[in-house]
Amino acid sequence: MTPEQARAAFRAGTVAPTSGWATGFTQTNLIAVPRDWAYDVLLFCQRNPQPCPVLDVTDPGSTATTLAPGADLSRDLPRYRVWRHGELAEEVDDVSGLWQENLVAFSIGCSFTFETGLLAAGIPLRHLEQGRNVSMYVTNRECRPAGRLYGPMVVSMRPIPAGRVDEAIAISGAMPAVHGAPVHVGDPAGLGIADLTRPDFGDPVEAEPGDVPVFWACGVTPQAALMASKPPFAITHSPGHMFITDRRDSEYRVPTAAR
Amino acid sequence: MTPEQARAAFRAGTVAPTSGWATGFTQTNLIAVPRDWAYDVLLFCQRNPQPCPVLDVTDPGSTATTLAPGADLSRDLPRYRVWRHGELAEEVDDVSGLWQENLVAFSIGCSFTFETGLLAAGIPLRHLEQGRNVSMYVTNRECRPAGRLYGPMVVSMRPIPAGRVDEAIAISGAMPAVHGAPVHVGDPAGLGIADLTRPDFGDPVEAEPGDVPVFWACGVTPQAALMASKPPFAITHSPGHMFITDRRDSEYRVPTAAR
Repeated sequence: MTPEQARAAFRAGTVAPTSGWATGFTQTNLIAVPRDWAYDVLLFCQRNPQPCPVLDVTDPGSTATTLAPGADLSRDLPRYRVWRHGELAEEVDDVSGLWQENLVAFSIGCSFTFETGLLAAGIPLRHLEQGRNVSMYVTNRECRPAGRLYGPMVVSMRPIPAGRVDEAIAISGAMPAVHGAPVHVGDPAGLGIADLTRPDFGDPVEAEPGDVPVFWACGVTPQAALMASKPPFAITHSPGHMFITDRRDSEYRVPTAAR
Repeated sequence: MTPEQARAAFRAGTVAPTSGWATGFTQTNLIAVPRDWAYDVLLFCQRNPQPCPVLDVTDPGSTATTLAPGADLSRDLPRYRVWRHGELAEEVDDVSGLWQENLVAFSIGCSFTFETGLLAAGIPLRHLEQGRNVSMYVTNRECRPAGRLYGPMVVSMRPIPAGRVDEAIAISGAMPAVHGAPVHVGDPAGLGIADLTRPDFGDPVEAEPGDVPVFWACGVTPQAALMASKPPFAITHSPGHMFITDRRDSEYRVPTAAR
């Protein structure tokens, strides 16, 4: 299945989490806000690039993105959340009728991208083995604020066999545009996380003997900060229901050859 | 000499190009614009990250930067340019009296940072050997526009011995936050450059036998785009008179280990 076919299915009404769709193509988080909130969002992302890697920003009112020419950000995701004054107002499959002419949409990188690299190297990903969503936690590390936006960094955790941790660090570290290297390895207390079995978002994931918890900055961070500051209107993807771009995951590896 | 000592000298009135000052510490380009131009500048940089790597953005009116705690962006550069309606109005050593409360300052990465890495690997840099400024050229590659900002990509060129080009690509490619890998290697016509001996900015630099021209995206790009769009007021550094930060050049290498 190509990204274009996947988007066409979602546009036609299919609703499903996008994990496993169009494998090898980059999926992104969506955050759309009115133009007068866009500078705060963009600056928050600039100041916190590990949790908030911006892959594209639309012009006001546009639903087009350079990440997938011909796609429509208001129709091609399987499911959306609509927010009013920081509260979840509704969850719908199409927001084309709600797309205001001053709306600016941010496509934020997603850890699915480096997971492709980890899997290709044969590093096991327990949440996939167990058919679960990745575990996510609010940490005690504050993001650098920007205008009206502030909040803690959120991380995702993957149990990795101790002998493969260095390799996992190197593979994800070479992809700084999609969260990059882990922010922490080992003791969860180092991030203020009291209990790994009780994630703040996603599902609990069981470690295998010899696994070490490895923590990456998470794309939920900017959405959480934005909602805390209660913009009058916003649209996001529904968790797990991402935008599938035409970009290959490998494009976000640091280039080491002339283009 | 530490970065702090260098900044103190400039604050005290020393005027000099900063090449060779506080070696190993990152120097940055300065662009300060009124708040209502800041989104366009930040978005232009997001859309054109190779020529316009943003390392820090101040809050409106502030002259402080996380790149050098205690520094004052309005006094600690050796020389500034003041722009009114896109025209150079004056060149001064201190802009503290001109720093308006709505001014937002962008610190943009500079190729000095990856030059440190090239020199450390023993790759010769002809412009330094010849005591000249690097050669810079306007190319036929248009940047992706953002709001009122548009313009061509500007590149810097370094003649590199053919046998060291791969290494130069790898070293700079590992520093995507300071222009990253070259955008072009070899024939200048590939970038629409007619005559290497006549750079648009900087000095002509002579190649040694066996050298190949290697082109990197250049931090002059955002300044040129901004001035073309004629904001009512702006402050920049004077060419070659950069801001010296407390960050080590090595910090901008892609991290491959947990922090």
